[in-house]
Amino acid sequence: MSDVYAARRARLRDRYAAGGSAAALVSRPANVRYLAAVAPPGAVLLLGPDADADTLLCPRTAADGVEGRAGEGVRVSVLPTDTGDPAVAAAGLLVPSAAVSLAVEEHHLTVARHRAIGSVAPGLRLMDLAGAVEQQRIVKDDEEIGCLRIAAEIADQALGELLESILVGRTERHLALELERRLIDHGADGPAFPTTVATGPHAGRVAHRPSDRRVEEGDFLFVGLGAEYRGYRCLIGRTFVIGTSPADWQIDLYELVFAAQRAGREGLLPGVPCRAVDRATRQPLVSAGYGDGLAPRTGHGVGLEIDEDPQLAPTAMGKLEACVPVTVGPGVHLPGRGGVRIDDTLVVRPEADGGPELLTITTKELLAL
Amino acid sequence: MSDVYAARRARLRDRYAAGGSAAALVSRPANVRYLAAVAPPGAVLLLGPDADADTLLCPRTAADGVEGRAGEGVRVSVLPTDTGDPAVAAAGLLVPSAAVSLAVEEHHLTVARHRAIGSVAPGLRLMDLAGAVEQQRIVKDDEEIGCLRIAAEIADQALGELLESILVGRTERHLALELERRLIDHGADGPAFPTTVATGPHAGRVAHRPSDRRVEEGDFLFVGLGAEYRGYRCLIGRTFVIGTSPADWQIDLYELVFAAQRAGREGLLPGVPCRAVDRATRQPLVSAGYGDGLAPRTGHGVGLEIDEDPQLAPTAMGKLEACVPVTVGPGVHLPGRGGVRIDDTLVVRPEADGGPELLTITTKELLAL
Repeated sequence: MSDVYAARRARLRDRYAAGGSAAALVSRPANVRYLAAVAPPGAVLLLGPDADADTLLCPRTAADGVEGRAGEGVRVSVLPTDTGDPAVAAAGLLVPSAAVSLAVEEHHLTVARHRAIGSVAPGLRLMDLAGAVEQQRIVKDDEEIGCLRIAAEIADQALGELLESILVGRTERHLALELERRLIDHGADGPAFPTTVATGPHAGRVAHRPSDRRVEEGDFLFVGLGAEYRGYRCLIGRTFVIGTSPADWQIDLYELVFAAQRAGREGLLPGVPCRAVDRATRQPLVSAGYGDGLAPRTGHGVGLEIDEDPQLAPTAMGKLEACVPVTVGPGVHLPGRGGVRIDDTLVVRPEADGGPELLTITTKELLAL
Repeated sequence: MSDVYAARRARLRDRYAAGGSAAALVSRPANVRYLAAVAPPGAVLLLGPDADADTLLCPRTAADGVEGRAGEGVRVSVLPTDTGDPAVAAAGLLVPSAAVSLAVEEHHLTVARHRAIGSVAPGLRLMDLAGAVEQQRIVKDDEEIGCLRIAAEIADQALGELLESILVGRTERHLALELERRLIDHGADGPAFPTTVATGPHAGRVAHRPSDRRVEEGDFLFVGLGAEYRGYRCLIGRTFVIGTSPADWQIDLYELVFAAQRAGREGLLPGVPCRAVDRATRQPLVSAGYGDGLAPRTGHGVGLEIDEDPQLAPTAMGKLEACVPVTVGPGVHLPGRGGVRIDDTLVVRPEADGGPELLTITTKELLAL
């Protein structure tokens, strides 16, 4: 298992060496974890010109037990004092070496930290590692997909239990907290992101924060949640109707969003352009006259972060590859009335392997609860 | 109430104008909220040379209801497209104006964003606003302290209820989740930070993440929690003993930490150097032989963030001022056995006003539960 991390670092080393950098400094936490197996708060990973220089620099307050959990071949260096920036200390390590250039994550480092790195090692040319690690993270290995599969199973279980309980009269906040408790009951390390519960007029809104509104008869109820399992994060979103008989407009809207979501899911095959999946998902909603209020994306990658590349959006570049987990989650929100979102996590697979693998398997029939 | 925000912006304007900047771009979310009353995800605040140019630039996806909640005199500008960085758009707004320099938050902006701002407005000289807003936030007004007082009351209530329930056999994770539910029950907008519950050998560790360990007879039990109320965050930490009769070493350690914490609290008066408060708190623990494992700080400011200036640490500069809320929370951890932390939120007040105001009032007697 730990060889996986060494192989990832070797691949990255080839990349930045080809770009003319002798060493790289990885500071974004999910990237550190991807390459070193652990990412204690504030720690950074220095990759040397040779593998035996790879060092995880760790604040003293976060050093507990890191030594035993870091990937094989990663040296752990705990900062000797309680203050100081591990990124600056990393640059200091390079001063006596022959390295003349260091690639840093300019999309993560602040201007102030970048300058501090420059001052401690004035002879070092700072280059941009850009999104090299993020790009490497897009295609997942079997172990990673295994973690996502378990994360999805946990989310399905938590959601399934909630549906068996009485919902009318309970607030969005309480339902969200109960879901998070159930995620942990079923073995999640935590929620993958803040759980969303949106009732009545709130249902269908993007990124709604749970409020004190209570579930009422006749409401649409949207629930969006995910589990984190060994660092990997999935996402599921479902919309239900409260009460025995959904109104006609609710059934119609649900069927429309469901058809859009299915169209997107069916496009998740290697070689398909990301924007084509977005278009397939978006088109039914646009044709029905809901084009204006649509979210900028209809899906995105997941993994060590809940929002990764690829992006499923009209201006997205690139094509899908096998073993890339993505979400497909279109939605329509009608101001004052509420709306419908349906969100799944799937893995891109070739037709020969049965096509897209659905990880979140809770039913997408319209349930009246 | 909204005049408060205009006054804060005016004060900041004087500051950066004196530093030679015509305009300032505030990107750190707590700073945006402090100056504009709201901080939608991704939004930035552009302060012009004149007050009537103050503009909150907001991503389209986060624009819901912002117009009505922004501070008086803040123009809200929603980005016309779904992509793009509000900070870059802000710099674009300055291009046709006479502004030649813009102060930005170099400790918050990434190198990549800083460069993008530079490219859209090449004639603009980018300067550093540094921690000007953070510094302005240190001394709180009555309204802010009122919010902290309510936040502390909520945390006290949640903790009090937990103490009435059965604890033995329950896991750290579940106790933490139950506390967070109770915070919300009592009116918190959410937890101020991830709730900590540490049992047995975990008790007393800094920043322990709740695990599946269950509470056992004879354990030390540490609970650290806080409420967020209207954006303001407080903190309380208490250590208990599980079972009817604490061991002698537990009583001794508790009394030691309690004495240290009291010494720190008593020092919270205007004009006292921050490092003197830290020294008063630290000294009893060092004298008892626990100097090596102590945390780098014994307390810090709180407010819109749970960790603000001032710092109570050996190398901290500056003196306390009236109306500054701080935490005082020393702790000792004995590897393998556990330990004690006691943490309060207080407001610095002059002797004439009765001295430091304790916000978190849960008892600090050693309770055997």
